[in-house]
Amino acid sequence: MTDVVELAERLIACPSVTPASGPVFDALEAMLAPLGFEVDRFIAGAGDGDDAVENLLAIRRGPAGSRHLAFAGHLDVVPPGEGWASAPFAPERRPGPGGEVLYGRGAVDMKGAIAAMVAAAAEVPAAAGTLSFVITGDEEGPAVHGTRALIERIRARGEVPDLCLVGEPTSVHRLGDTIKIGRRGSVNIFLEVAGTQGHVAYPHLADNPIPKLVAMLAELDALVLDEGTEWFQPSNLEATDITVGNPAHNVIPARASARISIRFNALHTGAELAKRVDAIARRHGGSAQAIVSGEAFLTPPGDFSALIADAIAAETGIIAELSTTGGTSDARFLKHLCPVIECGLVNATMHKCDEAVAVEDLAVLARIYTRVANAVFKDVGEMVA
Amino acid sequence: MTDVVELAERLIACPSVTPASGPVFDALEAMLAPLGFEVDRFIAGAGDGDDAVENLLAIRRGPAGSRHLAFAGHLDVVPPGEGWASAPFAPERRPGPGGEVLYGRGAVDMKGAIAAMVAAAAEVPAAAGTLSFVITGDEEGPAVHGTRALIERIRARGEVPDLCLVGEPTSVHRLGDTIKIGRRGSVNIFLEVAGTQGHVAYPHLADNPIPKLVAMLAELDALVLDEGTEWFQPSNLEATDITVGNPAHNVIPARASARISIRFNALHTGAELAKRVDAIARRHGGSAQAIVSGEAFLTPPGDFSALIADAIAAETGIIAELSTTGGTSDARFLKHLCPVIECGLVNATMHKCDEAVAVEDLAVLARIYTRVANAVFKDVGEMVA
Repeated sequence: MTDVVELAERLIACPSVTPASGPVFDALEAMLAPLGFEVDRFIAGAGDGDDAVENLLAIRRGPAGSRHLAFAGHLDVVPPGEGWASAPFAPERRPGPGGEVLYGRGAVDMKGAIAAMVAAAAEVPAAAGTLSFVITGDEEGPAVHGTRALIERIRARGEVPDLCLVGEPTSVHRLGDTIKIGRRGSVNIFLEVAGTQGHVAYPHLADNPIPKLVAMLAELDALVLDEGTEWFQPSNLEATDITVGNPAHNVIPARASARISIRFNALHTGAELAKRVDAIARRHGGSAQAIVSGEAFLTPPGDFSALIADAIAAETGIIAELSTTGGTSDARFLKHLCPVIECGLVNATMHKCDEAVAVEDLAVLARIYTRVANAVFKDVGEMVA
Repeated sequence: MTDVVELAERLIACPSVTPASGPVFDALEAMLAPLGFEVDRFIAGAGDGDDAVENLLAIRRGPAGSRHLAFAGHLDVVPPGEGWASAPFAPERRPGPGGEVLYGRGAVDMKGAIAAMVAAAAEVPAAAGTLSFVITGDEEGPAVHGTRALIERIRARGEVPDLCLVGEPTSVHRLGDTIKIGRRGSVNIFLEVAGTQGHVAYPHLADNPIPKLVAMLAELDALVLDEGTEWFQPSNLEATDITVGNPAHNVIPARASARISIRFNALHTGAELAKRVDAIARRHGGSAQAIVSGEAFLTPPGDFSALIADAIAAETGIIAELSTTGGTSDARFLKHLCPVIECGLVNATMHKCDEAVAVEDLAVLARIYTRVANAVFKDVGEMVA
């Protein structure tokens, strides 16, 4: 089998803090081209004031009518931060209690998984089915010109996959213990109440916006959005900021604002929640502006999740938990193309200093991905509706 | 009678933005010494990190056993600001619709009143009673080393007055329409809730301080401190600031704080309110730190207020309203010495640009003060308990 660790090291060795472009994509292209992939790299977002983002779409077409599985992920990484034992972009293998460990920014999130996908692609017969790579340089950043642009590109090219596997580090304690069949959606809502400034000694001449904001937040905090579903924990609302910014002790301020974050399950949409919060805000004399970061998605348990769980069980003996917890990922966009499930490395060190992956896990994940692809191409059955 | 306008001009001509010292006190001393006052000037607060403040205590003793009336006030002024039609510290008389008007910073707050007190002192026979001036250079500033230091000085010298008249500009529309027989107290309370920072997607791993602060503020906002008294409006609590300062949309913050201001009547003390708010804060998992700016004071209507109202009525025909509204004044300190009432010029232009006093009002106020002093020395009766 291809040396998946060496592939991971080549990717880690290319610094690629969000937004990533250039060398790290060169490295991936150099891995995929020899495997028969047609590589389509493009820059999105240049010239509109945002950072330009590089994206890569690689396709190796199977026979006509064969299934199409997409491996999706990102080559950008979060900034390394301080305190590393070795240089974050100089991959280094060091012995660990459970075997050799590979250190470097992106080791688990998610250059290691992309290396495992490449290694799997090398194992899966080209004639078995259509395999593609949907890889962005901006998942950790604004994500405006990343996977969304890839989806447009895929649609424009008429290469929509049947199933999509995202390599996010979903495992919690041991490789394969958790896969994500859904994610909650996320909406940030900015609340504002305008009042009339005045002297605290003459409150009848002022209109204090703070009590209105407080009553609004108290009502929002008491909201029970739902009780959760079979696959989702209850939706949750958190107040994340309040701003008045009034240094004068004897002045009633003219304005008060706050920000809430709602992580919501598939019982809601961002727009519906925004409308509901706006109604409450207005009832308290304020207003609300919502920014939906992502809608909830759910790929209901079925053949696709079973096939992935089977692959994990065969390689590790572990029964994977089907989870919908945690933050958002690019699966929130990919769900618009086809059923999507996330399965990847152990996330304990992601975004931290000394990010690291067990070398053995890289090889096991490559074998899991290989099993998944082979099974999709053989057994997809009714899982693709 | 002494030319009160000329006295006011001499005081206004000495720039004396808080904290005041030097020339403006020289000017006042030069007025009082010829009238038989023993003048005691001293600096307080030097060397302790605060601004040094000049204070003046002047006494003209009457016969043994005679009553002692103190005229109290301040020679410092607020900064002039921009936009004056004439230089703020170059007193200028200009014609107005109702007669000549004297412009200058301090014209009504309160060099004009001090000039009227000096003019009154010149009219009142020295043998009628003991008259004193209790004049600070810091009423508009921190007021730490001003009237409080004067009170210590008065006590140390054993010259505690029987009654005190403060020359703050209490009149609203016409000279004499309002005198202050009390003021509300003021306390600022700083509320804080500590939580545990975390990611909004994992609220169970965090402890959001905002809902606790919101519940605390909602309970505080609903407090009914009292229904007011015969002489005071109800005590009032206003939230004046909230600070979280969390720019990260996906982060539950570690800390939330707020500030409230309570203006309270004589049914409360600052310490009692601080304790009460602290109990509420603790019940919601937070804490409270109070800074009492001043306690409420009330000189219940009686002979002293009647005597002042009579003087006003005799000179103006106006029935003075006995008020306890508005902000704090140095009467909050003087009340510890003896009954204190505030009576002064029309406050419409105080702290504003083009601060001005009707020239006629200065003369009328000097006559009112003269009547008050003469009446105190003659008729004090049971008003001094």
